[in-house]
Amino acid sequence: MIHGPNLDRLGRREPAIYGNLTLAEIDSRIVAEAAALEMSVRTVQHNSEGAMIDELHGADGTVDGVLLNPGAFTHYAYAVRDAIAAIATPVIEVHLSNPHAREAFRRESVVAPVCRGTIAGFGPDSYLLALRALQRATETETRMNS
Amino acid sequence: MIHGPNLDRLGRREPAIYGNLTLAEIDSRIVAEAAALEMSVRTVQHNSEGAMIDELHGADGTVDGVLLNPGAFTHYAYAVRDAIAAIATPVIEVHLSNPHAREAFRRESVVAPVCRGTIAGFGPDSYLLALRALQRATETETRMNS
Amino acid sequence: MIHGPNLDRLGRREPAIYGNLTLAEIDSRIVAEAAALEMSVRTVQHNSEGAMIDELHGADGTVDGVLLNPGAFTHYAYAVRDAIAAIATPVIEVHLSNPHAREAFRRESVVAPVCRGTIAGFGPDSYLLALRALQRATETETRMNS
Amino acid sequence: MIHGPNLDRLGRREPAIYGNLTLAEIDSRIVAEAAALEMSVRTVQHNSEGAMIDELHGADGTVDGVLLNPGAFTHYAYAVRDAIAAIATPVIEVHLSNPHAREAFRRESVVAPVCRGTIAGFGPDSYLLALRALQRATETETRMNS
Amino acid sequence: MIHGPNLDRLGRREPAIYGNLTLAEIDSRIVAEAAALEMSVRTVQHNSEGAMIDELHGADGTVDGVLLNPGAFTHYAYAVRDAIAAIATPVIEVHLSNPHAREAFRRESVVAPVCRGTIAGFGPDSYLLALRALQRATETETRMNS
Amino acid sequence: MIHGPNLDRLGRREPAIYGNLTLAEIDSRIVAEAAALEMSVRTVQHNSEGAMIDELHGADGTVDGVLLNPGAFTHYAYAVRDAIAAIATPVIEVHLSNPHAREAFRRESVVAPVCRGTIAGFGPDSYLLALRALQRATETETRMNS
Amino acid sequence: MIHGPNLDRLGRREPAIYGNLTLAEIDSRIVAEAAALEMSVRTVQHNSEGAMIDELHGADGTVDGVLLNPGAFTHYAYAVRDAIAAIATPVIEVHLSNPHAREAFRRESVVAPVCRGTIAGFGPDSYLLALRALQRATETETRMNS
Amino acid sequence: MIHGPNLDRLGRREPAIYGNLTLAEIDSRIVAEAAALEMSVRTVQHNSEGAMIDELHGADGTVDGVLLNPGAFTHYAYAVRDAIAAIATPVIEVHLSNPHAREAFRRESVVAPVCRGTIAGFGPDSYLLALRALQRATETETRMNS
Amino acid sequence: MIHGPNLDRLGRREPAIYGNLTLAEIDSRIVAEAAALEMSVRTVQHNSEGAMIDELHGADGTVDGVLLNPGAFTHYAYAVRDAIAAIATPVIEVHLSNPHAREAFRRESVVAPVCRGTIAGFGPDSYLLALRALQRATETETRMNS
Amino acid sequence: MIHGPNLDRLGRREPAIYGNLTLAEIDSRIVAEAAALEMSVRTVQHNSEGAMIDELHGADGTVDGVLLNPGAFTHYAYAVRDAIAAIATPVIEVHLSNPHAREAFRRESVVAPVCRGTIAGFGPDSYLLALRALQRATETETRMNS
Amino acid sequence: MIHGPNLDRLGRREPAIYGNLTLAEIDSRIVAEAAALEMSVRTVQHNSEGAMIDELHGADGTVDGVLLNPGAFTHYAYAVRDAIAAIATPVIEVHLSNPHAREAFRRESVVAPVCRGTIAGFGPDSYLLALRALQRATETETRMNS
Amino acid sequence: MIHGPNLDRLGRREPAIYGNLTLAEIDSRIVAEAAALEMSVRTVQHNSEGAMIDELHGADGTVDGVLLNPGAFTHYAYAVRDAIAAIATPVIEVHLSNPHAREAFRRESVVAPVCRGTIAGFGPDSYLLALRALQRATETETRMNS
Repeated sequence: MIHGPNLDRLGRREPAIYGNLTLAEIDSRIVAEAAALEMSVRTVQHNSEGAMIDELHGADGTVDGVLLNPGAFTHYAYAVRDAIAAIATPVIEVHLSNPHAREAFRRESVVAPVCRGTIAGFGPDSYLLALRALQRATETETRMNS
Repeated sequence: MIHGPNLDRLGRREPAIYGNLTLAEIDSRIVAEAAALEMSVRTVQHNSEGAMIDELHGADGTVDGVLLNPGAFTHYAYAVRDAIAAIATPVIEVHLSNPHAREAFRRESVVAPVCRGTIAGFGPDSYLLALRALQRATETETRMNS
Repeated sequence: MIHGPNLDRLGRREPAIYGNLTLAEIDSRIVAEAAALEMSVRTVQHNSEGAMIDELHGADGTVDGVLLNPGAFTHYAYAVRDAIAAIATPVIEVHLSNPHAREAFRRESVVAPVCRGTIAGFGPDSYLLALRALQRATETETRMNS
Repeated sequence: MIHGPNLDRLGRREPAIYGNLTLAEIDSRIVAEAAALEMSVRTVQHNSEGAMIDELHGADGTVDGVLLNPGAFTHYAYAVRDAIAAIATPVIEVHLSNPHAREAFRRESVVAPVCRGTIAGFGPDSYLLALRALQRATETETRMNS
Repeated sequence: MIHGPNLDRLGRREPAIYGNLTLAEIDSRIVAEAAALEMSVRTVQHNSEGAMIDELHGADGTVDGVLLNPGAFTHYAYAVRDAIAAIATPVIEVHLSNPHAREAFRRESVVAPVCRGTIAGFGPDSYLLALRALQRATETETRMNS
Repeated sequence: MIHGPNLDRLGRREPAIYGNLTLAEIDSRIVAEAAALEMSVRTVQHNSEGAMIDELHGADGTVDGVLLNPGAFTHYAYAVRDAIAAIATPVIEVHLSNPHAREAFRRESVVAPVCRGTIAGFGPDSYLLALRALQRATETETRMNS
Repeated sequence: MIHGPNLDRLGRREPAIYGNLTLAEIDSRIVAEAAALEMSVRTVQHNSEGAMIDELHGADGTVDGVLLNPGAFTHYAYAVRDAIAAIATPVIEVHLSNPHAREAFRRESVVAPVCRGTIAGFGPDSYLLALRALQRATETETRMNS
Repeated sequence: MIHGPNLDRLGRREPAIYGNLTLAEIDSRIVAEAAALEMSVRTVQHNSEGAMIDELHGADGTVDGVLLNPGAFTHYAYAVRDAIAAIATPVIEVHLSNPHAREAFRRESVVAPVCRGTIAGFGPDSYLLALRALQRATETETRMNS
Repeated sequence: MIHGPNLDRLGRREPAIYGNLTLAEIDSRIVAEAAALEMSVRTVQHNSEGAMIDELHGADGTVDGVLLNPGAFTHYAYAVRDAIAAIATPVIEVHLSNPHAREAFRRESVVAPVCRGTIAGFGPDSYLLALRALQRATETETRMNS
Repeated sequence: MIHGPNLDRLGRREPAIYGNLTLAEIDSRIVAEAAALEMSVRTVQHNSEGAMIDELHGADGTVDGVLLNPGAFTHYAYAVRDAIAAIATPVIEVHLSNPHAREAFRRESVVAPVCRGTIAGFGPDSYLLALRALQRATETETRMNS
Repeated sequence: MIHGPNLDRLGRREPAIYGNLTLAEIDSRIVAEAAALEMSVRTVQHNSEGAMIDELHGADGTVDGVLLNPGAFTHYAYAVRDAIAAIATPVIEVHLSNPHAREAFRRESVVAPVCRGTIAGFGPDSYLLALRALQRATETETRMNS
Repeated sequence: MIHGPNLDRLGRREPAIYGNLTLAEIDSRIVAEAAALEMSVRTVQHNSEGAMIDELHGADGTVDGVLLNPGAFTHYAYAVRDAIAAIATPVIEVHLSNPHAREAFRRESVVAPVCRGTIAGFGPDSYLLALRALQRATETETRMNS
């Protein structure tokens, strides 16, 4: 699970949009849900585009999938897009809020075309649903390859 | 669960994009998942914008939420958008495929700004995840109102 | 008088924008005003573009004019535009709210170029003014043709 | 009633679009209609944007409403827009012709978003209908405040 | 042969653009030409986008080809586009007039990319030519597959 | 029959798009079809915009019609457009492939607004259909003028 | 001859673009050239859009033609455009410099579509040429009407 | 100090955006700050574009600098832009509010490219800071020229 | 004097726009006017962009100036633009009609930024005025260099 | 005070635009001015977007305000914008040069809408003025809250 | 080696951009470099789009590669683009100057998508590098096919 | 030689586009070619925009030139552009693939206008050619300065 820029401000940043939970609290929920689904998960947060790219590269071949909330990078960071395209691991785009219900510049996602799918608008539940989506996608592929 | 135009063609329509399951098979999965989640669900499919609007109006106050795959209406049917805005029932936008990985005209969703959230790109699992998203959203609101 | 999509939700739909009167109450006012002006009026509401087109065709040569609130069809339904152009009966575009004071997509009207005129922003009074506008326009034409 | 630039040319200017009545004849009709409605009205015409702004400022708190035909200022004069927004008196946008049926540059109104409503396309009747619209709007507000 | 919205008005609607023949007269010509070509043809007309989609679905596997005049749906009805893409039967786009010689909004066809070809601008002859085009295309494919 | 730039490469150029027939083979078919229709036809091919314009001028008053496949000139050569507008002879725009199903720049035709009609997407049959379209159009005009 | 905004600054304003002559010196040349052509001319300069409109109205029926350098009004003052369209007197658009060789915003002229013609880029000679153009145009019309 | 259109409404106009001080009160502050900085200042307000241009011309060579709040003229009045470019006196663009945090049309300034600099968003303090900016800029130039 | 594509059709091509004179008649007038001004002139016409470029190159250093009516090349032929920029001889852009009063695509001139000036809208007089403009421009330069 | 990317090159980088002072010299002036205003200031410079975001987060609740020169990040770094929106500390956008007088891409600021205000175009004085603007803004808020 | 329009003017045309060498001098260098690389090369220059297309067709199967400097055709000549796509011979796009550092219209290359690669900005060295690029590309392909 | 984001993935990332060589293998070739050209070269790779900017600053005055493959930063990283403009060392833009033959967003290069030149589309040979381009450019400048 990679959290993008400014998500370390959760709980303090514009709670009307992002809710009251801190990132640590959300991460706890993610870990708990993963455990319930018999998955293991590592969570990191990066404000730097370069660090996010490094993280994505590191995920290639070492994990079954990546949940990525690219924050504002969603809208312009083509280098993150290329990083996703450059690894075989499936990446799911996740957003706490519904970007389409906000400013115009948030309506374009440059990473969406290279992600497996998108889950947006359900607050912290977006992450929990994405975990489940990843689990199902992995099962399907395993079944198809066997 | 409201399926939009051309989704009655599933299984026969461009399987490389939409998969091999027919709409009936997908509906069975939705019903089964709903049962597992102790929810009840009714599924319909409409090729007509007017019928979809009627269906949305009928859902107001009678169900806890609507899962809507607007098909191609996603990209231009502002009357469907207004229908969603005109009811209090939360609506979740669902897509089988990832619209951002397809033609340019599929990158804009005119309904997204008035939906609760979006789940796209996971094939039939998109619907099952949306059921779960709806359940959680309903629980959260119930908790907040009590 | 043809009411377009979602106008059957009046009174319940976003009252801050559309007011508290139901469509039935507005229709009563329209009928009463028409009686005061010694006009007779029939009111219908359609959520379907095809039905609205049928209605417009049916009005050709059978009524003196059409008051049309195309709802969200205003902004993209070129087939409704063609239906207006395809009949000789004058059509007046009517809106409860002022579309220019709302979302950007509501600033374009694809039907306006083929309508006789537009009255927008006066709530239910928009309809009553349009009745009067139609009466005057009819009188003027009668006078010019005699 | 404020007439905008070039409306002093009425009767001589492109009669196919604007009709044969002079501005004086139209003003007579407006005054007569106002008398019939037990309203009093003053009419002015300005070719200068600054003068129109002064007039709008002068109307604040001294009249119940303003009927404004901004002429070509409709399409670019943001300072007129700001003048309307800067006064509490309601302003109704009026046009003799239907701007949407003319050149492309006439499809945008920069003043519409801050006006109460719009009446366009009925020739001199546009003004008479606007008088009536203003009267009803004033009554409604008086009723709501009492 | 599927005629789109407002084509039931032919003969009465803007004859300078669409000619003087009624739809029934055009249909007779189509049937006669088909007979001469030893083809059989059924003609329908729909003002509703949903009905047109149903008709296209019904054509899959039951006819050798569809001649489609989508009327104003040509310019925005992506759901019709998807319906064409969702069937294996070849569809030929037909127009009575030359859309490029008319309003700017008629220069874009959203269905053209998924049609086999386009014939436009020859009045009722457009349909007769399309019949012939369909016959040749079918022969070519039969020859290639045998 | 005027073939535009690069059509001399037919049979060798991108056969997946343009087919396997050479220009000479297509011209034979055109001549044969013309003979069957009791028409006479001359075919030329030009890579130069100036030569195409000269050819169009030369056709004025000397032939009954021109079939024109402007190739890539379709999309930017306004001088060809003016040449078509500058002659009384009707011109039919013909394309082997369906330009709308290809690159975005091929969706605009600058010559279409001044052509009589368009036939596109039927491979070499496009030319044969255009011959027939021209014959019918000529007959109609002769009938109307007599 | 109507000079537009900022032309009173000539001789002092950006001489690299506008030359070293003052407006008075240019007006002397215009008067002298008019005398040589046996024409009489009156020159005025206005920084106000309203005053320019008044001047144009005043010219209707009182002079044979207007030479107009609208200055920066060229690019946005639709009310000046309407004033030109509202009078029968021919108006010739004149510019000292070549607007196309300057900033991008100077490439659009909103008055050009309603002017008789344009002369631009010859410094003060632009005015002298325009005088001559007006004389010829007037002669032609006189000849055609006699 | 030149205040643009509608700034005479300060204190009464949309106080949430522009604050509670009247223009007279702001002018007093400006005069007081100027005195403290040993500068002298004259303040004027114009609703007319022509008057603002006259004022700018009059400032050339008679004052050390101009503070200009062009109000809504900021966004379209190219004639004001030309007036600034036509004088040697430095002009500083000043805004009470932050135009970028408001409507989209306020994001473009047509005068900014020819101003020395911009100060926006600090309410009446914007003017006081601009006085100081002007003083420093003047000192720098004096120093460079001596 | 270089006439561009389709100007050889003058007198026969759309006389409502271009007038009744043939190119030969216009050329006679040009030669006569040149003689009256004690200038000598050679006139050519080209439908080919390459030939026009060759002609422009040939004019470098051999003539005092070029009058160029680029016809439709005006709007897209950047190679002609580069040819003008590549020679030292001044080039004046000339048009018979007023391109701004015609189709939208005629509002952009890609050659204007590298021409000395433009004269448009005066029919054949445009050429005669351009001759005179050229003469004056040449005199001015001679005077400045001596 | 946060200096953005490439500002460490000051004094060496394009001095015609940015002046001759090095960043260290500018920082000295800022510190001196702050001392004169009885404020304390810390200055940092970052070429990395992530580091700038971290810095902004660190400023929340620890300083009274941030002066930010985002350099080229101004024009695309939405993550910096979100960082400013995510903290309560007021941020003032500062530029040495006037971005509107430079390349087109510098006319858009994605951070401006979430900044308190902007000061641009005064060279190093921009920073000193911004210090003063911050001081006044802080005083005003303190006064309003007490 | 095909040189495009206006390159015959090299040495005389805007030397600040294109350098002082004539085309003949550049061609000598190309021939010399080719000899050093044991390649043989033929150089031509065309001002006509049609001739350039003919040249490209002639290169198919007769040479190992084409170096093409399309001059201004780069930006609009889709027929040249199609000619490149219509031959199997690899084509390398070459420019003397860096088109991105010049006018905006030079930033788009319509031929680039169908060329093997691009070398731009190194003056005459661009050609010498392109020769080498072609040699290496040919070697690579030979190696891969053997 | 600076490699941009995701180039560390070479050999594993989309080999159909980028080839099978790893970055280490390409670097070996670059070093070998440099040795053959009697140049010395250092290669680095950065996923972070800030690190790339630092690297560019460090190159100023310490190396004779920089070969830069900015990866996806090419399309939006204006801070990298400014870093190139802020150093005197010449920078050559290099791409393995031909960006114009890929997604639309790759057609714009924000760094190209400040680079010396561009070499794209030759796979690893792009780097080797760029080394040679740099060598020649350096020689030319040395010769011109001596």
